[in-house]
Amino acid sequence: MIGAAGRDPTEAPEERRFLSTEEAAALERELLEDYRFGRQQLVELCGHASAVAVTKVFPLPALSRKQRTVLVVCGPEQNGAVGLVCARHLRVFEYEPTIFYPTRSLDPLHRDLTTQCEKMDIPFLSYLPTEVSAPRQLRGRWGMMPQGCPLLYLPSQVQLINDAYGLVVDAVLGPGVEPGEVGGPCTRALATLKLLSIPLVSLDIPSGWDAETGGGDSEDGLRPDVLVSLAAPKRCAGRFSGRHHFVAGRFVPDDVRRKFALRLPGYTGTDCVAAL
Amino acid sequence: MIGAAGRDPTEAPEERRFLSTEEAAALERELLEDYRFGRQQLVELCGHASAVAVTKVFPLPALSRKQRTVLVVCGPEQNGAVGLVCARHLRVFEYEPTIFYPTRSLDPLHRDLTTQCEKMDIPFLSYLPTEVSAPRQLRGRWGMMPQGCPLLYLPSQVQLINDAYGLVVDAVLGPGVEPGEVGGPCTRALATLKLLSIPLVSLDIPSGWDAETGGGDSEDGLRPDVLVSLAAPKRCAGRFSGRHHFVAGRFVPDDVRRKFALRLPGYTGTDCVAAL
Repeated sequence: MIGAAGRDPTEAPEERRFLSTEEAAALERELLEDYRFGRQQLVELCGHASAVAVTKVFPLPALSRKQRTVLVVCGPEQNGAVGLVCARHLRVFEYEPTIFYPTRSLDPLHRDLTTQCEKMDIPFLSYLPTEVSAPRQLRGRWGMMPQGCPLLYLPSQVQLINDAYGLVVDAVLGPGVEPGEVGGPCTRALATLKLLSIPLVSLDIPSGWDAETGGGDSEDGLRPDVLVSLAAPKRCAGRFSGRHHFVAGRFVPDDVRRKFALRLPGYTGTDCVAAL
Repeated sequence: MIGAAGRDPTEAPEERRFLSTEEAAALERELLEDYRFGRQQLVELCGHASAVAVTKVFPLPALSRKQRTVLVVCGPEQNGAVGLVCARHLRVFEYEPTIFYPTRSLDPLHRDLTTQCEKMDIPFLSYLPTEVSAPRQLRGRWGMMPQGCPLLYLPSQVQLINDAYGLVVDAVLGPGVEPGEVGGPCTRALATLKLLSIPLVSLDIPSGWDAETGGGDSEDGLRPDVLVSLAAPKRCAGRFSGRHHFVAGRFVPDDVRRKFALRLPGYTGTDCVAAL
């Protein structure tokens, strides 16, 4: 079988395990158009697997009550829909998710997934502390700021998130979505996520990274502890340096894996994620 | 909170753990209309959980190659759609499913789920050996029949299924669907399933049983070894006498469980099924 780029995958270089943006889009098209997977179906499978990945790194019995609280930050695109499903399954697994979903999509899929979470009494935050008005050069030097400084409240708000939640799930931006496309609240949320000290789990790509080059993975970018690649790892995952990298793509048919030369570790038993 | 029948579930009798047909329909309506679950989503969750239940009773490492072959018999209604999803996940779990789906639904959901299985190279049988023309009183006495009897080929066809497959998944009829509603091929398939000696796994209810009373659970009815109740057990499950009864309803929100007074065992870890 010949790979998407017309190459024989048995001769494909090792880096082809991680998909370019174009290949990732082609793989998704293949699932949706040729295999007739539904978006509802894929988003459910990916969100469920993302929640399972969280349980593997942060197993419930090992967590204090505070550590079970998870802030799930959702953008308006598909990545955010996966985040909503992830939050629901985390709730089912007896974690305590809270959702921040500032820019709501009009897509019926997102609307229905939101209703499911709302009806299951998962709290939705109406705002998130943000540091956008803080001068960049002051970051990390809050303790040195003079009393009475009008920016002094900002670090304590970030501290509030650090204190209130055990971890954060970043479902803000998927591959090919620029921060500028999703509106101010999401951009500001990303700025806040960068300041947090609690563990960060990114879904598919760390939000703001270039899916292809990992651009954004500068000192200003998100540095997640856990990355859950959906369907297959995107190229930027090669620059991920966090502790745990999972792929949640057990639903990808064998023929599609071969076509895209995905050389991935096997899944165990009925596991829906595999550690890379 | 008051149960569906207006009773306080804390005082509900033990048998209310198993839902009447009316309650089961009300629970499904609640999920679809109030919680805005999609049918694609619920069918995916139920089919995945059904496949996981199969792996719990028949774990792959303990099976010979022949025992990994699973015949999944699907009807044209929702139960059959769950069967198609179950077959796909069994394939993902490295079992070898074959599907018999004689009366195809025109529903786009069924059509898409069928395409997924076809594209994943899961074989579809175009016919199933049937014994409908065999006089009932001759069943089980094939060895005694004279050579040259025109019915002699029938038991060997049933034997062919027994020999070719390790187990059968019955996804023919769900609650409230009468055998007469689904056409001759499904009715004949049920007649054949009754004669098989390999293990039988029924999804939601044993096909042909009355969901309420278990009628059909006579000597002529299916006697599955495994029952996987979807969302919650239906009343007829009280008459199930097979070895393993699972409930695949982890996705049912707590409030809905309370409303319908579902007193079910807890799920472990990230398990999507629980043994009853």
